[in-house]
Amino acid sequence: MAYPGYGAGPGGVPGQDPLYGYFSAVAGQDGQISADELQRCLTQSGISGSYQPFSLDTCRLMINMLDRDMSGSMGFAEFRDLWQALNGWKNTFASYDRDHSGTVEGHEMQQAITSMGYRLSPQAMNCIMKRYSTNSRITFDDFMSCCIRLRALTDHFRRRDTTQNGSATFQYDDFIQVTMSV
Amino acid sequence: MAYPGYGAGPGGVPGQDPLYGYFSAVAGQDGQISADELQRCLTQSGISGSYQPFSLDTCRLMINMLDRDMSGSMGFAEFRDLWQALNGWKNTFASYDRDHSGTVEGHEMQQAITSMGYRLSPQAMNCIMKRYSTNSRITFDDFMSCCIRLRALTDHFRRRDTTQNGSATFQYDDFIQVTMSV
Repeated sequence: MAYPGYGAGPGGVPGQDPLYGYFSAVAGQDGQISADELQRCLTQSGISGSYQPFSLDTCRLMINMLDRDMSGSMGFAEFRDLWQALNGWKNTFASYDRDHSGTVEGHEMQQAITSMGYRLSPQAMNCIMKRYSTNSRITFDDFMSCCIRLRALTDHFRRRDTTQNGSATFQYDDFIQVTMSV
Repeated sequence: MAYPGYGAGPGGVPGQDPLYGYFSAVAGQDGQISADELQRCLTQSGISGSYQPFSLDTCRLMINMLDRDMSGSMGFAEFRDLWQALNGWKNTFASYDRDHSGTVEGHEMQQAITSMGYRLSPQAMNCIMKRYSTNSRITFDDFMSCCIRLRALTDHFRRRDTTQNGSATFQYDDFIQVTMSV
């Protein structure tokens, strides 16, 4: 009889987790990585595959998406959450980038966003396309940046939508904290 | 007796406005410029001075900040508004970058934001620093990107804060339109 989860319980065992190798190679003694260390770590891990490595700006968004203590850096547990999210989004991107050009079209990005469960108006989709497309196409890095921000902003909104009716009230300072962090 | 405003009324006379030269050189027949054309235009104008030219991402933010019709491009009137804003922010940046390193420190950026009239909590300032600094310093391009987003988000918030009491209610779709466009 197997012991489900034995040796890989919640939180994991760093020494047995292959991801820990990528993480610890850049984390240093404090066990935390900053945006430029994350960029190096992700580049070395090869997660981008044949796509361009992540920009520093996108790496800062990654840290902020998961930075619950606003430390500006990321521990291993957050890194593992990030890894899972990035792989999901990468696979989605790759499924639309059938010709491996490294870009997808605007309508494909809209389909991808819908497939992730977001229900947005054509106006909102249009805002996103205008923000992330260059000559009507979206690069891998911009696609990931969009996914990170959409998830983080939706999470923040949901926490403030206390009655879950799709409406939330913000104080100005809180609004700036939420929107300027990603 | 002079005729105030004669020959340079509201809207200006393109043929007499030196800015129009920069604009028309890239605008083409439709009289509108896209983000990559804006990047070329600003680089050619030399507005960045000795600082690095604006990134494409920052140019997309510039267009979206002023893009009232959500066309994704910019006419000459909007370009002139942008030019004025960029020069103001550049002068602010330069006044803090006393050693001409092309970067300012986090606390200097906080002073700059306060000098622009924003009244933000230490928490909000911290969010902004975490988002825009690299090794505790902020580059010219990131500083401009921050100023553009802070202005656009504050404008959007103010329009929804109908009683001007510092609180605004958003529907989810509207929240995404506002926050994902910049």
